[in-house]
Amino acid sequence: MKDETPPDIPTFADVLAARDRIAMHIHRTPVLTSRMLNEMAGAELFFKCENLQKAGAFKARGASNAVFGLSDDQAARGVATHSSGNHGTCLSYAAGRRGIPCTVVMPRTAPQAKKDAVMGYGGRVVECEPSTSSREAVFAEVVAETGAEFVHPYNDRRVIAGQGTCALELADQVEGLDAVIAPIGGGGMVSGTCLTLSQIAPRVRMYAGEPEQADDAARSLKAGYIIADDAPETIADGLKVPLKDLTWHFVRNHVADILTVSEAEIIAAMELIWKRLKIVMEPSSAVPLAAVLKNPELFAGQRVGIIITGGNVDLKKLPWM
Amino acid sequence: MKDETPPDIPTFADVLAARDRIAMHIHRTPVLTSRMLNEMAGAELFFKCENLQKAGAFKARGASNAVFGLSDDQAARGVATHSSGNHGTCLSYAAGRRGIPCTVVMPRTAPQAKKDAVMGYGGRVVECEPSTSSREAVFAEVVAETGAEFVHPYNDRRVIAGQGTCALELADQVEGLDAVIAPIGGGGMVSGTCLTLSQIAPRVRMYAGEPEQADDAARSLKAGYIIADDAPETIADGLKVPLKDLTWHFVRNHVADILTVSEAEIIAAMELIWKRLKIVMEPSSAVPLAAVLKNPELFAGQRVGIIITGGNVDLKKLPWM
Repeated sequence: MKDETPPDIPTFADVLAARDRIAMHIHRTPVLTSRMLNEMAGAELFFKCENLQKAGAFKARGASNAVFGLSDDQAARGVATHSSGNHGTCLSYAAGRRGIPCTVVMPRTAPQAKKDAVMGYGGRVVECEPSTSSREAVFAEVVAETGAEFVHPYNDRRVIAGQGTCALELADQVEGLDAVIAPIGGGGMVSGTCLTLSQIAPRVRMYAGEPEQADDAARSLKAGYIIADDAPETIADGLKVPLKDLTWHFVRNHVADILTVSEAEIIAAMELIWKRLKIVMEPSSAVPLAAVLKNPELFAGQRVGIIITGGNVDLKKLPWM
Repeated sequence: MKDETPPDIPTFADVLAARDRIAMHIHRTPVLTSRMLNEMAGAELFFKCENLQKAGAFKARGASNAVFGLSDDQAARGVATHSSGNHGTCLSYAAGRRGIPCTVVMPRTAPQAKKDAVMGYGGRVVECEPSTSSREAVFAEVVAETGAEFVHPYNDRRVIAGQGTCALELADQVEGLDAVIAPIGGGGMVSGTCLTLSQIAPRVRMYAGEPEQADDAARSLKAGYIIADDAPETIADGLKVPLKDLTWHFVRNHVADILTVSEAEIIAAMELIWKRLKIVMEPSSAVPLAAVLKNPELFAGQRVGIIITGGNVDLKKLPWM
């Protein structure tokens, strides 16, 4: 059972096809460095700034790949997802670019800013109660009504292949990387990065960073099977979701280790990045730097890529205020 | 009198020499775009992100050019300036890179964060009373004691030539610009940009943005001579200083217009940039976008370069909090 490969695993050819498909719809994001952060880490850090991506998150890559890969018939019926995070916003962005309908099911308790973000790109928000059963029922209704194509936030071949285009750019922008680290929630970015690096730079070690308070992926990796937490609480709110079969495939086959960090370590790393790199990014994106600073022995003297996954944060509620 | 050219005006050859001299010490900063900001402006905006520059501001360019242009003998005696803003930090940064002493004279009332920034790069802070007479007396003492080379924040041939390297990059990164706009305080960045663009892209119109509450440069341009305000008050605290002979030369000969904006317009533009471009930048750097949004008829349908000059801001005191 352990070595069973799910049937719909994306391939490197999918990543290359995604790159061509989405090139017009995404930014080639810059890589930033800071001598002071290098000194703190005892390593050379290269920050791949997906917070500067279209719609403010790497998820514009996977969402664009899914949307622009649809046939005209499928596209006419639109796309749908359930997400109160960046995936909903990014799917709305991509659908808007193609001029097709997008419906995002969200708990009525989700922050208004998240709903506004979806609607700002032309998407429709349908509210559900804040429970899994309500979400599933409402979502099923939306799909039945519209015939929309479901684009899962991460457990989707097209989405993972799209996220894999980020590492293509990173490897092109930075020579001789020894390791790459990304935050892990559902594992979409980690999976796409593993997929790409295992093909073009197999010597690069892949790490994931995870909040201690939502460490289901770290425990899954140790246990050898997927563990899902019930409603974890962390400031890194993009990282609360569990692994699924496609992402688990990449995590268990390619990830060297999953490093966990405390809430205080996340906030400290976030403030460091804002101050030193002068970028606006969300708490989830601070998890990898926190993990690198906490485990200097793993990265000493090495060239380390750090993926800053998103920048969608409430500027009125910063954690150090 | 009006057409008299000051004797020490930098030339385009100085800019090219500066580019080679400082290449190892500065970042080639990225240019960011936002479809939503383009839609608001009715123009294509290209944000040159000098907030992502070394030490957090474009002033690392001019300071590095001054420091690395010194002879070994001069360098051994170090550099000195008076500045409670980015120039002091950036001079300390450049001096630290060369391993020479740097002294920055600052009012004792300057924020501790500004003093820490200078010291963080290895510079020495000498405090004076918050008055021009005290600053001048203390600064004269420092120079007499150390023999340090004075590097003025902007009215300095080496500094202006260094700032001119930013427009070299921008013109290389963005084709077919119609206009460029930068904030104006003392006029160092505006002068360097005029110097470069008048040589390599003379059809590009140069604008400056200025706070209404510190509009001495705008009034100078109208009057035909330098007007200096006494202690203006604006949130754009990098823009309170007056023009001097070298920068006035470029402003009066090359600037198409100086556009003024209110404090509320500056804060609104700053929040827009943080939200849409996901970058940390200071109020002064929001002035050009505020000016573009206020004067759509000047830029309609055009390709406009906007220089984001710096990112050194107190993250605990954001103006929309």
